[in-house]
Amino acid sequence: MIALSDQRELLCRLLQRFYDNGWISGTGGGICALESPGRLLLAPTGVHKELVAPEHFFVVDVDTGSVIEAPSDATLRPSECGDIFRTVIRRRGAGAVVHSHALAAVLASDLAAEGALVVEQLEMLKGIPGVTNTDRHLVPVVANTAREPELVSSVEAILTDDRFARTWAIGVRDHGAYIWGSDVWEAKKHTEVYHFLFEAIVAREGRA
Amino acid sequence: MIALSDQRELLCRLLQRFYDNGWISGTGGGICALESPGRLLLAPTGVHKELVAPEHFFVVDVDTGSVIEAPSDATLRPSECGDIFRTVIRRRGAGAVVHSHALAAVLASDLAAEGALVVEQLEMLKGIPGVTNTDRHLVPVVANTAREPELVSSVEAILTDDRFARTWAIGVRDHGAYIWGSDVWEAKKHTEVYHFLFEAIVAREGRA
Amino acid sequence: MIALSDQRELLCRLLQRFYDNGWISGTGGGICALESPGRLLLAPTGVHKELVAPEHFFVVDVDTGSVIEAPSDATLRPSECGDIFRTVIRRRGAGAVVHSHALAAVLASDLAAEGALVVEQLEMLKGIPGVTNTDRHLVPVVANTAREPELVSSVEAILTDDRFARTWAIGVRDHGAYIWGSDVWEAKKHTEVYHFLFEAIVAREGRA
Amino acid sequence: MIALSDQRELLCRLLQRFYDNGWISGTGGGICALESPGRLLLAPTGVHKELVAPEHFFVVDVDTGSVIEAPSDATLRPSECGDIFRTVIRRRGAGAVVHSHALAAVLASDLAAEGALVVEQLEMLKGIPGVTNTDRHLVPVVANTAREPELVSSVEAILTDDRFARTWAIGVRDHGAYIWGSDVWEAKKHTEVYHFLFEAIVAREGRA
Repeated sequence: MIALSDQRELLCRLLQRFYDNGWISGTGGGICALESPGRLLLAPTGVHKELVAPEHFFVVDVDTGSVIEAPSDATLRPSECGDIFRTVIRRRGAGAVVHSHALAAVLASDLAAEGALVVEQLEMLKGIPGVTNTDRHLVPVVANTAREPELVSSVEAILTDDRFARTWAIGVRDHGAYIWGSDVWEAKKHTEVYHFLFEAIVAREGRA
Repeated sequence: MIALSDQRELLCRLLQRFYDNGWISGTGGGICALESPGRLLLAPTGVHKELVAPEHFFVVDVDTGSVIEAPSDATLRPSECGDIFRTVIRRRGAGAVVHSHALAAVLASDLAAEGALVVEQLEMLKGIPGVTNTDRHLVPVVANTAREPELVSSVEAILTDDRFARTWAIGVRDHGAYIWGSDVWEAKKHTEVYHFLFEAIVAREGRA
Repeated sequence: MIALSDQRELLCRLLQRFYDNGWISGTGGGICALESPGRLLLAPTGVHKELVAPEHFFVVDVDTGSVIEAPSDATLRPSECGDIFRTVIRRRGAGAVVHSHALAAVLASDLAAEGALVVEQLEMLKGIPGVTNTDRHLVPVVANTAREPELVSSVEAILTDDRFARTWAIGVRDHGAYIWGSDVWEAKKHTEVYHFLFEAIVAREGRA
Repeated sequence: MIALSDQRELLCRLLQRFYDNGWISGTGGGICALESPGRLLLAPTGVHKELVAPEHFFVVDVDTGSVIEAPSDATLRPSECGDIFRTVIRRRGAGAVVHSHALAAVLASDLAAEGALVVEQLEMLKGIPGVTNTDRHLVPVVANTAREPELVSSVEAILTDDRFARTWAIGVRDHGAYIWGSDVWEAKKHTEVYHFLFEAIVAREGRA
């Protein structure tokens, strides 16, 4: 509904929407998307994400992580999530990845046992490719680390673990979640779906 | 307040509002309305509902479900809710039906016993035709199914059950709700009324 | 900040804001304000309140309740709250009254014992004239009735009860609240203040 | 992203955003920022904060608190928070201070023992300079007073207490919080960060 040529604009609109939802407040969170094979659009770090404009993105080499094009604003630095984003893209063929700092992701991750959240009995599960409402869906949850690049090895381990073959999200305890899709629109969809699942788990647990 | 000639525009605005309310996130939910006798405007499936535009609607035959007019965007497919929508329209004379994926509808449906939610002690009940605040209003809740067309027979049974003669909504466990009105404006009103009732039931149950 | 000549416009903006807050959904709630001595601007009943336009208001005689001017749209009828609104205006010298259908007002009213909510230990109490944060503020709560005009005698009794001399709001069990101010801006302020108080009471009670 | 020359405009936009978040309703809350060394832009008191316009600000002497420039609207009076704001600026070198009336700040302050909230196990802690996610961060909480200027001595004591050397916020029981940054953008960031922390503490405590 928005042409691919407007991809930077689309990423900015998603950041605004996610900010309105409270998922990336306090300059937290991030987003990236493949502009073309090998070239990754990456939002800057440490800025108010809802105010990111199309000209603020870095273009990064997906394989090496090196900056191919930098924004003209020399004060900007590329997102600290870059290494995790590139790992998800390479391991899962993702075209876009969202990093959420939503409270619901934190509260849901609190409930994970043995490194995973179990999600079941929810129609919204159908929003995940290959998953249906009668499935027991496992969302991996990793421990938080002092710096985001240190999460890379945990994320790498998750992405090669058969238990989590169907997941399009990884929770990070006390922190939030990484959520991806094969393109930006699917990443938007999955971001909404997983936040719904997180909220549902938290609400149902409050009753148990 | 918006002329009937703008009905497609009105449906799009309602989708935007319902999305802002969190009722149709993750491409979930849907909407339909009679454009004229026998011709049903039906939103497409699998798209970000808040971005649906007037030219994206299908026109479907109310009796047969066959597509009379398709949008020029050939990638669009008609909503999977079509059969349920048409059943509600035929059985209840509805002019518009909303399908909600709200968390409050899921959490309220969790509380249903013997296939129904009991709603009472709420002024908002007066928002439902023929119901008053001193009534004990029964909202039917059906089990979820693997695919939405399979819900048709449950919905059909509900709509011919005398216990539920006054309901303008059907909850679907783990899933959401179908809510209708005699026209689009009444469907909007009932959608807001039933979501308020769902939220009230969930909040009051949390205290019990 | 908006001139008095724009009073109808201001009332419409407040309805939009209150609707966004979830306080007047499902065509519920209402608003009125004195246009000039004796002439009361009254929103119509049974319409989607967030879509009320300046030309939709009735002008009603404050003393008799009779319609002085009706909107050109002949399908509109004056709010059912008219009698209660006029009672508050006459007894308390109010210049504007809001009728809320907020869930927080319902849930707070559930907690009232002996016909009143006790509000204390909140800075927000200072938003009410003559009340300070060290006061124990009593908000009267009346039983709901089948029709809103029947509430008039309960409201009249409350407004002449010395216990409630300082209140600018009356809760209605299972229903919502009436909140007023000496003019529209103060009614807006008090509406926000009392909703904050309702939400605080409900949240704190959930812990007790 | 918005030039410093637009600082008044930026303060107004932040007030609008904070109002939308429910942090400064009912004319509560406030904001200030250094326009230049010694000159403090101060919002007016007792007005609907989301409607404050650039021309409504006072310019106040940071050292003495005396008004250097008053808005042309003679009905406006400077914020009651002025003395507390100036204390924070002088003691901590802050460039901007926000006063929040958020319910989450009140509910979190309810949980403080021995004058402090303990915040830990949250990535969002990294949004505070010199604090990391493995730290145990202490947020001071002072008792409320009848009038805001009386809080000045409690605030002064907090700001010279070594236990709270790293805090950029002070909770006020039953009331809200003061939150600051070295400039307006950092104050915005810290405001969002601390509200997230308050919400997280309240949600996690509800489970304990």
